[in-house]
Amino acid sequence: MSEIVEKILSNYAGETPGVVGNLRKMLNTGTLAGTGKMVILPVDQGFEHGPGRTFEPNASGYDPFYHPKLALESGCNAYAAPLGALEVVANRYAGALPLILKLNNSDLLGDPGAPASALTGTVKDAVRLGCSAIGFTIYPGSPARNTTYQQIRDLIVEARESGLPTVLWSYARGSMSKEGETALDVIAYSAHIACQLGAHVIKVKPPTSHLERADKDTKKAYENIPRETMEQRIRHVVKSCFDGRRIVIFSGGEAKGTAEVLAEIQGIHKGGGFGSIMGRNAFQRPEADAKKLLGDVMAIYKS
Amino acid sequence: MSEIVEKILSNYAGETPGVVGNLRKMLNTGTLAGTGKMVILPVDQGFEHGPGRTFEPNASGYDPFYHPKLALESGCNAYAAPLGALEVVANRYAGALPLILKLNNSDLLGDPGAPASALTGTVKDAVRLGCSAIGFTIYPGSPARNTTYQQIRDLIVEARESGLPTVLWSYARGSMSKEGETALDVIAYSAHIACQLGAHVIKVKPPTSHLERADKDTKKAYENIPRETMEQRIRHVVKSCFDGRRIVIFSGGEAKGTAEVLAEIQGIHKGGGFGSIMGRNAFQRPEADAKKLLGDVMAIYKS
Amino acid sequence: MSEIVEKILSNYAGETPGVVGNLRKMLNTGTLAGTGKMVILPVDQGFEHGPGRTFEPNASGYDPFYHPKLALESGCNAYAAPLGALEVVANRYAGALPLILKLNNSDLLGDPGAPASALTGTVKDAVRLGCSAIGFTIYPGSPARNTTYQQIRDLIVEARESGLPTVLWSYARGSMSKEGETALDVIAYSAHIACQLGAHVIKVKPPTSHLERADKDTKKAYENIPRETMEQRIRHVVKSCFDGRRIVIFSGGEAKGTAEVLAEIQGIHKGGGFGSIMGRNAFQRPEADAKKLLGDVMAIYKS
Amino acid sequence: MSEIVEKILSNYAGETPGVVGNLRKMLNTGTLAGTGKMVILPVDQGFEHGPGRTFEPNASGYDPFYHPKLALESGCNAYAAPLGALEVVANRYAGALPLILKLNNSDLLGDPGAPASALTGTVKDAVRLGCSAIGFTIYPGSPARNTTYQQIRDLIVEARESGLPTVLWSYARGSMSKEGETALDVIAYSAHIACQLGAHVIKVKPPTSHLERADKDTKKAYENIPRETMEQRIRHVVKSCFDGRRIVIFSGGEAKGTAEVLAEIQGIHKGGGFGSIMGRNAFQRPEADAKKLLGDVMAIYKS
Amino acid sequence: MSEIVEKILSNYAGETPGVVGNLRKMLNTGTLAGTGKMVILPVDQGFEHGPGRTFEPNASGYDPFYHPKLALESGCNAYAAPLGALEVVANRYAGALPLILKLNNSDLLGDPGAPASALTGTVKDAVRLGCSAIGFTIYPGSPARNTTYQQIRDLIVEARESGLPTVLWSYARGSMSKEGETALDVIAYSAHIACQLGAHVIKVKPPTSHLERADKDTKKAYENIPRETMEQRIRHVVKSCFDGRRIVIFSGGEAKGTAEVLAEIQGIHKGGGFGSIMGRNAFQRPEADAKKLLGDVMAIYKS
Repeated sequence: MSEIVEKILSNYAGETPGVVGNLRKMLNTGTLAGTGKMVILPVDQGFEHGPGRTFEPNASGYDPFYHPKLALESGCNAYAAPLGALEVVANRYAGALPLILKLNNSDLLGDPGAPASALTGTVKDAVRLGCSAIGFTIYPGSPARNTTYQQIRDLIVEARESGLPTVLWSYARGSMSKEGETALDVIAYSAHIACQLGAHVIKVKPPTSHLERADKDTKKAYENIPRETMEQRIRHVVKSCFDGRRIVIFSGGEAKGTAEVLAEIQGIHKGGGFGSIMGRNAFQRPEADAKKLLGDVMAIYKS
Repeated sequence: MSEIVEKILSNYAGETPGVVGNLRKMLNTGTLAGTGKMVILPVDQGFEHGPGRTFEPNASGYDPFYHPKLALESGCNAYAAPLGALEVVANRYAGALPLILKLNNSDLLGDPGAPASALTGTVKDAVRLGCSAIGFTIYPGSPARNTTYQQIRDLIVEARESGLPTVLWSYARGSMSKEGETALDVIAYSAHIACQLGAHVIKVKPPTSHLERADKDTKKAYENIPRETMEQRIRHVVKSCFDGRRIVIFSGGEAKGTAEVLAEIQGIHKGGGFGSIMGRNAFQRPEADAKKLLGDVMAIYKS
Repeated sequence: MSEIVEKILSNYAGETPGVVGNLRKMLNTGTLAGTGKMVILPVDQGFEHGPGRTFEPNASGYDPFYHPKLALESGCNAYAAPLGALEVVANRYAGALPLILKLNNSDLLGDPGAPASALTGTVKDAVRLGCSAIGFTIYPGSPARNTTYQQIRDLIVEARESGLPTVLWSYARGSMSKEGETALDVIAYSAHIACQLGAHVIKVKPPTSHLERADKDTKKAYENIPRETMEQRIRHVVKSCFDGRRIVIFSGGEAKGTAEVLAEIQGIHKGGGFGSIMGRNAFQRPEADAKKLLGDVMAIYKS
Repeated sequence: MSEIVEKILSNYAGETPGVVGNLRKMLNTGTLAGTGKMVILPVDQGFEHGPGRTFEPNASGYDPFYHPKLALESGCNAYAAPLGALEVVANRYAGALPLILKLNNSDLLGDPGAPASALTGTVKDAVRLGCSAIGFTIYPGSPARNTTYQQIRDLIVEARESGLPTVLWSYARGSMSKEGETALDVIAYSAHIACQLGAHVIKVKPPTSHLERADKDTKKAYENIPRETMEQRIRHVVKSCFDGRRIVIFSGGEAKGTAEVLAEIQGIHKGGGFGSIMGRNAFQRPEADAKKLLGDVMAIYKS
Repeated sequence: MSEIVEKILSNYAGETPGVVGNLRKMLNTGTLAGTGKMVILPVDQGFEHGPGRTFEPNASGYDPFYHPKLALESGCNAYAAPLGALEVVANRYAGALPLILKLNNSDLLGDPGAPASALTGTVKDAVRLGCSAIGFTIYPGSPARNTTYQQIRDLIVEARESGLPTVLWSYARGSMSKEGETALDVIAYSAHIACQLGAHVIKVKPPTSHLERADKDTKKAYENIPRETMEQRIRHVVKSCFDGRRIVIFSGGEAKGTAEVLAEIQGIHKGGGFGSIMGRNAFQRPEADAKKLLGDVMAIYKS
């Protein structure tokens, strides 16, 4: 038993043993097992951005077996994907690697009017495929807010009944500037909303030092919140997640250079972030490079 | 057994013992136990206004344990919060302090088109977390009226089946002027609607002497209703709540000075109001100040 | 057993004994018991128009006990109100006075876009409160027609399963002139629609001699339908309700003078109307006046 | 056993005995029993057009008993009406005359935005009232298509579970010219859609020789389809109904002269139509005339 | 047991034996039995384009028995049609020929606002009719995306519970140019989405060499993807379907000349496509020609 893991899990003291058990399993898997940190490999970009754009940079990725193998061999804590991709691989990987079924997805072909992913999987699918958690994306700031929040409200209840925790992707989008989507105040607010909705693990983008909301009270509050370094900004986001009592992890965002990625991870780690969910920056590189990068990232989190 | 509490509860004579029992528990808790008055600490502003803006003024508030502790130690009758925050603390506070789960919430990041909070929790969650009541916000005046009223209609039925009473936040918003949202006629009307919807406890803002509705009959009626003092206005609101047969309490509104707060409480008390629901004015002050203020407020209600 | 009541009930020959039994109870209650006529006291104006405007003219009405007491002591056949008001009084009046739960309501604070009341109570509430019928408002002419008709379609089925008949308020509103809302052709049409939807008791406004629909066939038909006197117009409305095989009663409309009210009642009675549903004209007068008026109205229906 | 009826029923070989049995009952009722032809009396015009306009031409029709009596005495195969009217008469006519409950209806008072009838009855109502089939109206061409088609999809399944076949009124309306609503290509298409939706009996209007759709392929196809006479046009519509394997009957449309009606029936009969559904042209005439006309119509179908 | 079929089925290793069994049955039926290739005859054009336009070119097609007979005698793997047509023939063909029930359909008479087919059949219907699979159409690119994806998400789950696999028609339509609907990147993306939604068999149109999406990453990716020949383009689409782990078949599109059809089939075959779904190009020809063409197509797939 890892003391640090058990301390984190004590923040979920009212949860069912089924849900806590799956969180424990994810935290005790892979290279970072027992450290209280997580690195998750998510591959939903085929759905979200199209297969050519997503997999052509490293064509091994057309094969849905490539990703869970990469996750397992790199020592990731879990692998997340939409329904179809998991259906291909679950028979081989369930029980070997924690799987997270993304229950909603968006694509770039059409525009449903307001940022809102379509429901594409069910909790029963997650159970059938031997998953350890469900994943879901909300877009705080979307005019479709009520529909989406009500969907995840009901899915969390249903997932709990099957012993599954919920990983919530919280991406502000809609009534704000492009820059505002990663503004510190917006990221902290998006993470807090995800916590309040009952998510067990929250995933947001690394915040910039930009501030978006212009009301007097928000501006006043942020005068006292240091935000120059990534470490400082991460610290505020973690604080906004029930003072560090919820697992909050950060995406890598757009594909970029290795040095840039690792610097960001350093900031996340120092600021108290619980880890990373790293997709394109990993699987779009050649396999060896990807493993090297994931290894380096994990080394930082173990440091 | 407090005679005054039992007299209030006799107004709920047709209710189930489960629902009446939870009302009795809340009325018999804390400093005001047995007085028939209530002071509730609500903390949903992290969700509604953002975490930085809400908790930075008193940074202890980032920790969700801070609030129920403050409520308990200050002698509040109950503590109300959204799902996520209650999930963190319920394991420790259920049974020690009446908890109210806010079942819907709004945020400032987006705009769903019409004032309407998103459903963010379920009655089953309230039961699971050991709560004593559910909370819900309606916005009389919103074009989304029918959807919202129908949601609370169904939730009240479901809550009753679990022995839980309903606390209804009734905030007029939508087709009226900003000033009209707290106009005496609008506040009285909003409180009356909440009563008619079957709420057990109604929460509205303290009314101003402004009148919003301009139809002949309303104007004529208000010629005879004194509305210069807060006491007079509260009296009319209480009368509009089935002639005082429903517990109606008042919010503190925006953060303001201590003297101003206490003067308002005096008016509420003299006018026959059943108490206060006081959030930002309490938890955004330093802990000692907050306890002092809550103590002073309770002293007025006991006077 | 009243022969006239049994004759009316024979028009509901295919109904369940539970539903027929509650109709029988209402027809055999109060001053008009056994006459086949009904006077119902409805008090939903607090919700529909606001409490100040509604109850200030006779401030006794702020107390929800005032109305069922007035109904009982005046010899009314039934008392109708929204959920909240009935919840206060049902424990005392169930079994003593037939109660009708209004299952949907509208208010004047906001505008849901199209005339359509919000669902504010359930059939289970009506059963729980010991009611003898459910009440519901439709607005023929509203763009929200389909939603509303489908709601009452389902509620009637559910009410029947609990042995409760349905009283349908049918108020034309929407795609017509203000004058058209009480036009003879529109009132007759609205009443007919309510009958076709399966209502057991239909309530419409007294029609004027105005004609609204301008299509050739409607105009031709009304050339032969006398409509100068209230008696003639009522006769056409009753005929439009399955040739008098459904109980159709008439509202008093806006508050007005006693002579005017009684003259209208005379017309309704002579035209074969089954009675009145009289709210504001009754409860906004001083108690003694209200009882006198209701007594005079009932005397006409007994004549 | 009528050979011709059994041959028609063999087209429903996969159906349940309950559904086939009710079709058999309708085909073996009245003057046309055993001929494989049907004349149905529908009276939903009180709802659809208003009671004055509908019943004043023959005032006996205000009485809902008039119509099933007329249907029975005229030897019709079935009588169709909305919920309320059937509830008045079902107790007397169930078992004596096949009854069809129209499950959706429209009215002329309002406009729900797109052609779409409101659900006004349930399959359970049809069972309770001893009906032999359900009726439903679709408006191919309406922007509300998906909602309406999905309603009838579910109702057909539910009706089958109670052994009830479905009669589908298919009236093109919406995105086409007024003339197009009865164009041959549109009527054939509307009838085909009704067949594909699973209707057992399809009712359309008699087609004109007009063609509405202007796409190249449709125009080319209709170059070879003769459409000068009603007989030719009916033949194409029957062919479009699975090559005559579904019972397709035709409405009489607007009230018109006797000669005109009978000429149309001749065309329907010669073209292979399965019969008529004749409302206004029958019940708006004096009783004797109506019976004479229905007798003449049936004589043609027997010829 | 066909090794090649079992190899294909091994890609569905996590599926229920019921679902796999029906896939196996379809792959082991007809001329192509055991080859791992499929040719399906779909006839939903009567619904989608109208009966005259669809069946007049070969008038035998008005008879719904013509098509399954053609499919059976031509050695097709399965026959797909909407509800009504299958209801006519299922009693004769269930068990003799795999049937696929198309659960949603669109028509050309109206426009529901956004590309979205209406639900016209249920999974229970498919079971009742002895079908081997359900069919469904999605329109990636439609503003109605979320509704449609959520429908198929639920239908796949329900179909699986009855042992039925899902064939998904994936036609990009909506926010793109007409040319873009068959662009290689769009077709590959549409096919990938269908895979991710959990389809077992995917049907798309043969792609052109056009590219639709103009974002930098997509353009870059397609620089390395050869797309001059049909074979190359098919190869990319198959790769986009989980690297060939899902059965992807291609429609014939608009009716065209025999040589053109066979050339296209050659490309599909060489590119690794799993077969064709060929409607108009088959059933609109005279029977003998249709059988000849289908035979030639199958010969290519066997080569």
